[in-house]
Amino acid sequence: MQQEAEISSKFIPKVHKMFKRLILPFAALVMGSGSLMAASGVERDSATQKTRYMLVIHGGAGTILKSQMTPEKEAAYKAGLTKALEAGYTILKSGGSSLDAVEAAVKVMEDNPLFNAGKGAVFTNEGRNEMDAAIMNGKTLQAGAVAGVTVVKNPITAARAVMDKSQHVLMFGPGAEKFAKQAGCEIVDPSYFYTEDRWKSLLKVRAADSTKMQLDHDSTIQHKPATKLGVENKDHKFGTVGAVAIDKQGNLAAATSTGGMTNKKFGRVGDSPIIGAGTYANNATCAISCTGWGEYFIRLVVAKTVSDLMEYKNMSVADAAAEMIMKQVPKLGGDGGLIAIDKDGNIAMPFNTAGMYRGSVTADGKIEVSIYKEN
Amino acid sequence: MQQEAEISSKFIPKVHKMFKRLILPFAALVMGSGSLMAASGVERDSATQKTRYMLVIHGGAGTILKSQMTPEKEAAYKAGLTKALEAGYTILKSGGSSLDAVEAAVKVMEDNPLFNAGKGAVFTNEGRNEMDAAIMNGKTLQAGAVAGVTVVKNPITAARAVMDKSQHVLMFGPGAEKFAKQAGCEIVDPSYFYTEDRWKSLLKVRAADSTKMQLDHDSTIQHKPATKLGVENKDHKFGTVGAVAIDKQGNLAAATSTGGMTNKKFGRVGDSPIIGAGTYANNATCAISCTGWGEYFIRLVVAKTVSDLMEYKNMSVADAAAEMIMKQVPKLGGDGGLIAIDKDGNIAMPFNTAGMYRGSVTADGKIEVSIYKEN
Repeated sequence: MQQEAEISSKFIPKVHKMFKRLILPFAALVMGSGSLMAASGVERDSATQKTRYMLVIHGGAGTILKSQMTPEKEAAYKAGLTKALEAGYTILKSGGSSLDAVEAAVKVMEDNPLFNAGKGAVFTNEGRNEMDAAIMNGKTLQAGAVAGVTVVKNPITAARAVMDKSQHVLMFGPGAEKFAKQAGCEIVDPSYFYTEDRWKSLLKVRAADSTKMQLDHDSTIQHKPATKLGVENKDHKFGTVGAVAIDKQGNLAAATSTGGMTNKKFGRVGDSPIIGAGTYANNATCAISCTGWGEYFIRLVVAKTVSDLMEYKNMSVADAAAEMIMKQVPKLGGDGGLIAIDKDGNIAMPFNTAGMYRGSVTADGKIEVSIYKEN
Repeated sequence: MQQEAEISSKFIPKVHKMFKRLILPFAALVMGSGSLMAASGVERDSATQKTRYMLVIHGGAGTILKSQMTPEKEAAYKAGLTKALEAGYTILKSGGSSLDAVEAAVKVMEDNPLFNAGKGAVFTNEGRNEMDAAIMNGKTLQAGAVAGVTVVKNPITAARAVMDKSQHVLMFGPGAEKFAKQAGCEIVDPSYFYTEDRWKSLLKVRAADSTKMQLDHDSTIQHKPATKLGVENKDHKFGTVGAVAIDKQGNLAAATSTGGMTNKKFGRVGDSPIIGAGTYANNATCAISCTGWGEYFIRLVVAKTVSDLMEYKNMSVADAAAEMIMKQVPKLGGDGGLIAIDKDGNIAMPFNTAGMYRGSVTADGKIEVSIYKEN
């Protein structure tokens, strides 16, 4: 493919056009469609796309330091990411849609207690697990999202149901759960989401909050900067999982799911279920899933802005993603990262935190997973 | 903590005041305020802005036909719009912030049973009034929003409290109500929101739904086009109020509040409380409040896209607003309108429906209110 691209980039447009009109049909007849792909830029691009199907995932960004990680934990995270990539890849390889692939990948991470989504969701201040999720179809711009669900085993399937089976885009709370149940999503007892690790985190953050700074306790405290939040609370803003994919048909899709913030109060909703903030997909530009300090991603409408920078300012996906994650988000005081795939299969995975659980799988089945900055 | 917060919030204005009292007059003395303004394009523009403070409001877009309106009802709507404009204008004229002005204008419309927000909120399928609201500060990009609140007299004040008094941007349901109460917002019994007109609308839509097409009843019905929704249901998607303003300091702000859709189910949330979809403000570009079929405004991230078209494609506010309301929204199958003010005081009020309750007031105190296309 690399070689083919080099050949066609040498074609002069006019000659190229004539070649397409006159020579190609004949060539196709004589040589078969395989060589047709190599001959023309347009055909090649669409053919390239077809072989360029891929999936990128994240399992959250934050203060993830090698020094604080055991080899066992690191291996478990990498295995979790790999399993999610495999689930999505199986679908893409067999000609399935990017929509199915991102849903499947996110579902695997939701079922893995290591990630802050589904089974591994963190606890709210009241000791509940309130989850948010969103999914978007880049071909149709259809989208579905749920916020504050507590009994849906896989919130991403509820988001998918909202998109596929309702007229709406966003549903919250008990109403969303009622709908998910009617739509056939698996419902579980809230106790399903209990994990000892997350419960301990809540107790720790609660204690830190009440003894150190009564974070959130005083409702008159305004917009505390990151440095005042303490590591515990800050880190627990960042648990999110997400996936973006492009399929053999060249269609893009994005999905994001989260358990929110440890110790969150007042029915707080972050950026994950907000179309345009934490999740966005458009075949004209790219598919994006964000992870980070949700409030900043909402205020900057990060995902849609990446898309708009590509569409209206002709930026590459890498430049547009970097503009938001390395400039605009930190400029306001926020942090986090995102994953993106553009319509040509270019990917970007910027983050401004110490680490971001992330991985990708390409059409050849090659899986890469990383955690820290250096790898 | 309470005390500290109070002290610091008093301290900052004091410094600011001192700066205004001591430094600014000195600068004016040395340079003369006239020459200061004229010296550079930027200063001149900001001076022009100072005389250009203004407020634009809407009371919802939809199938509003003169043929279906009585002169009394029309006069009542116009009086309601005028009262809201006056409330905001009083603040702007006396040097108050655009943020206070949009909140005040929206509050007046929330208190008016004619508009689908606050006191005039429509009923959900379960016979409740579930309201959403959002507010955004164009100077700081701070934002606050609530979704699905049922006991807050003025949802816009709850959104403002989320922005001013919490670390969060969006809160929903009982959590949002708990926060609003703690933050000092006026809490009322849900029966406060009962109005006979809205109750009759619910009964009518419920009946139409069950006899004609069981709209939403079958959760497997997918994305019905507008034509299948029936006039009753379609119209009742459009009740929203909103305000955008620019103040003497050249700061922009936007606010939106809604009672949602008559007969809505499953905790559906529209675009109003979604920053970037129904509400957005940025001093670098414009302030926007949308009204219309929320799902389409969410999927297209309408408000932020208007801003991005201005920022990244150098469009005027009129062209950018028209691009979304006259092209992108109808292209997907949606309808509605928006109001916008740009940083130089240019305004746009496009809508693709039969009518939109709307009005504006300029620095000279001139109030204009309109309902239909022709006026």
